[in-house]
Amino acid sequence: MKKLLIQTVTMVALLLGSLSCGQADDSDKAQIEAALKGYEQVLNASDVDGVLKLYTEDGVFMSPNNPSAVGIQQVEAAYTGAFQAIDLNVEFDIVEIEVISDDWAFARTNSTGTVTINATGDKFPEGNQELFVMQKIDGDWKIARYAFSTTNPRP
Amino acid sequence: MKKLLIQTVTMVALLLGSLSCGQADDSDKAQIEAALKGYEQVLNASDVDGVLKLYTEDGVFMSPNNPSAVGIQQVEAAYTGAFQAIDLNVEFDIVEIEVISDDWAFARTNSTGTVTINATGDKFPEGNQELFVMQKIDGDWKIARYAFSTTNPRP
Repeated sequence: MKKLLIQTVTMVALLLGSLSCGQADDSDKAQIEAALKGYEQVLNASDVDGVLKLYTEDGVFMSPNNPSAVGIQQVEAAYTGAFQAIDLNVEFDIVEIEVISDDWAFARTNSTGTVTINATGDKFPEGNQELFVMQKIDGDWKIARYAFSTTNPRP
Repeated sequence: MKKLLIQTVTMVALLLGSLSCGQADDSDKAQIEAALKGYEQVLNASDVDGVLKLYTEDGVFMSPNNPSAVGIQQVEAAYTGAFQAIDLNVEFDIVEIEVISDDWAFARTNSTGTVTINATGDKFPEGNQELFVMQKIDGDWKIARYAFSTTNPRP
């Protein structure tokens, strides 16, 4: 009887233990969605500080025509340079959010809108695809790795 | 005594249960490294079938100047088109591999080499940054999501 009891308790405990990881609840998805919408806002506002709050300390920003910006200082330099060169007015369409563990998720988006070249005032249509790896740090979902590229045809 | 025994068994079981997830061993990293090296090989061989074996059924390929190719059929069409247009001779440098759960990982690479435009024979230097989300399917690590862009300066 004692043996059976211990076996049962062990199985239930193991089950609970394995369930406790990799479980995404709706609030995680909602928080990630909010972070991505927040990214859209700070991007359109050319707000470097706002961008940095959304990145992890070891975050990586992979922007076309640039080497990967690795770590928050390089990320800051990359966005500072980008916002000096261009002004964005884009909207993100969230295509998928996959929460793959307690602390990790990834997301795909498509963004459309316009980019203004600050030096000339010229405006061009933007069309991009984005891949985000998100990490939960102290309860907040942040951008850990982020790569994007244009979906516009080659000029 | 019985209560203490059950408590102890429960704690050990919960500990084991929580340890059993998110644990990456070296063999996972080695297998992911092998998959990425395999990708380099099939890319350089313009081998569509070889590429497809490395993707999950729901895999997504995010290639610049194209809409995201979503699912294995769109991935096949995208690589078929790419290999008709260009011939690659590139080498991947694996910058990081992070195993974030039993079944999920991400990796960053940089690739350098040359691209030949098949229509003209012209060759250009390639320099790219790659972000892979990898998923373990039936024991094999595969490409689940993949985005890349050039690191060459804007022409």
